[in-house]
Amino acid sequence: MSFTQAELDYLGSQVLGRLATVAPDGTPQVSPTGFRYNAELGTIDIGGHNMARSKKFRNVAAGSRAAFVVDDIESTKPWKVRGVEVRGDAEALTGATAPAGLPGTPGEIIRIHPRRIVSWGLGESEPYRVNARSVASSRSVKTRNRRR
Amino acid sequence: MSFTQAELDYLGSQVLGRLATVAPDGTPQVSPTGFRYNAELGTIDIGGHNMARSKKFRNVAAGSRAAFVVDDIESTKPWKVRGVEVRGDAEALTGATAPAGLPGTPGEIIRIHPRRIVSWGLGESEPYRVNARSVASSRSVKTRNRRR
Repeated sequence: MSFTQAELDYLGSQVLGRLATVAPDGTPQVSPTGFRYNAELGTIDIGGHNMARSKKFRNVAAGSRAAFVVDDIESTKPWKVRGVEVRGDAEALTGATAPAGLPGTPGEIIRIHPRRIVSWGLGESEPYRVNARSVASSRSVKTRNRRR
Repeated sequence: MSFTQAELDYLGSQVLGRLATVAPDGTPQVSPTGFRYNAELGTIDIGGHNMARSKKFRNVAAGSRAAFVVDDIESTKPWKVRGVEVRGDAEALTGATAPAGLPGTPGEIIRIHPRRIVSWGLGESEPYRVNARSVASSRSVKTRNRRR
């Protein structure tokens, strides 16, 4: 299990995240997307209308890794933000079996295998806490603990 | 002028965006940040608490370009989303003069010079319209129209 229960609860409560990929020339791209946690694989599955024709899908197909952030402002007075960021290897898939309820063109998904998870502002904990750690990818057992 | 008035109005109405940068090993990173449009330079200026010690700042200092998206869900019934994405060259600056009101540690900013702007769902236009175009960077007059 890569995610904490607080992170899973939060991911399940949110509608959109923002996905970052990298074009072959090194330029990042970022856009809002629907998503679901894939409990069977431990991945974040990302869908969208005509996903397979999108720039983000082509970036991943060309070898880009991905980062995905889900966050919101819990309150403005006092200022409280919370969220989860995931970085990892990514797959651009067609004909995939995605979690129920994933929006977008059926079967066309970007699947992120978490290697690094950072979360903040989740749970009832005070003071404000950041939880950042490397995790074993579901696709490979090679951990990358050299990165903090 | 790179941005349309509708885009500037929208950017001025929103509190947070999400910034994507790329680590030297090619892994993207994405996180929520405060921002202001810098009208004098035509840039997006991004601030944050202890910005100069952040991973995004170090990524940009190491040569990463940046992408930044500001978006929200205008309504769920009917489903209406809107936003602006900017991609471009980026600078990691300390001691910078930033627009008034930019949150974060004073003077420590990431400054994005737009080269590509994509917006959607802005203005009163029907049907839903995407406005995507390359723009001349404020730092260089070399346009990159080869990218659609």
